[in-house]
Amino acid sequence: MSTFTPIKSLEAGSWLDAVKWNDQGLVPVIAQEVGSKDMLMMAWMNRDALLATLRLGEAVYWTRSRQKLWHKGEESGHIQKVKEIRLDCDGDAILLIVDQKDGVACHTGRHSCFFNEWDSVANNWVDRIKP
Amino acid sequence: MSTFTPIKSLEAGSWLDAVKWNDQGLVPVIAQEVGSKDMLMMAWMNRDALLATLRLGEAVYWTRSRQKLWHKGEESGHIQKVKEIRLDCDGDAILLIVDQKDGVACHTGRHSCFFNEWDSVANNWVDRIKP
Repeated sequence: MSTFTPIKSLEAGSWLDAVKWNDQGLVPVIAQEVGSKDMLMMAWMNRDALLATLRLGEAVYWTRSRQKLWHKGEESGHIQKVKEIRLDCDGDAILLIVDQKDGVACHTGRHSCFFNEWDSVANNWVDRIKP
Repeated sequence: MSTFTPIKSLEAGSWLDAVKWNDQGLVPVIAQEVGSKDMLMMAWMNRDALLATLRLGEAVYWTRSRQKLWHKGEESGHIQKVKEIRLDCDGDAILLIVDQKDGVACHTGRHSCFFNEWDSVANNWVDRIKP
């Protein structure tokens, strides 16, 4: 059962240090759809992104290419409402359980970013989910 | 439907370059249990680990702490039989769909490594899955 509710006034605290930030101050984050349990995408967070996610109740990542906070869906509308946030055993990965607006997580318009499947006959990656 | 079958004779090829290896030659890999669709763990692979996984049909990761190939379960017996391998839209994350031997992925003896859940009342991470 989820015990997640956004807390606007949440302050940084020792709980932030339970996360093992890498030498760029980032941690990998995976987003899984609530209900379907489909894997949607992988992205990165820094401390500010995690704090913003907890305050807002919607996924906020750090974009490495644009080097800034990225409120997922801010342009596309494909917001991710956060239902649960989990941290792994050694603190170096975060799992978000999200309600994916419109069911579209990928910038290509697909449901999931993981649409390339390894095909042992072709010995290559094959696009399994046409947009 | 999975089209994955191990190929012992598989050679490195251009398909390996579809993966965006980071500056340490690694890519993050997430393992999801077939059937339950539970998120089990996150780890890393280098080129040799991905090649070994494809050849063996069982998850082989790169351990950053021990700096060597890690055939998951080689000591614990908690092997992961690979059912599908997926690559994301920008090639910088891999998803394995696995049959988890004994249903135990975590070194703590738990089913999943993601047992710490954010609790908005405690304002902290709380262990939700006792081993």
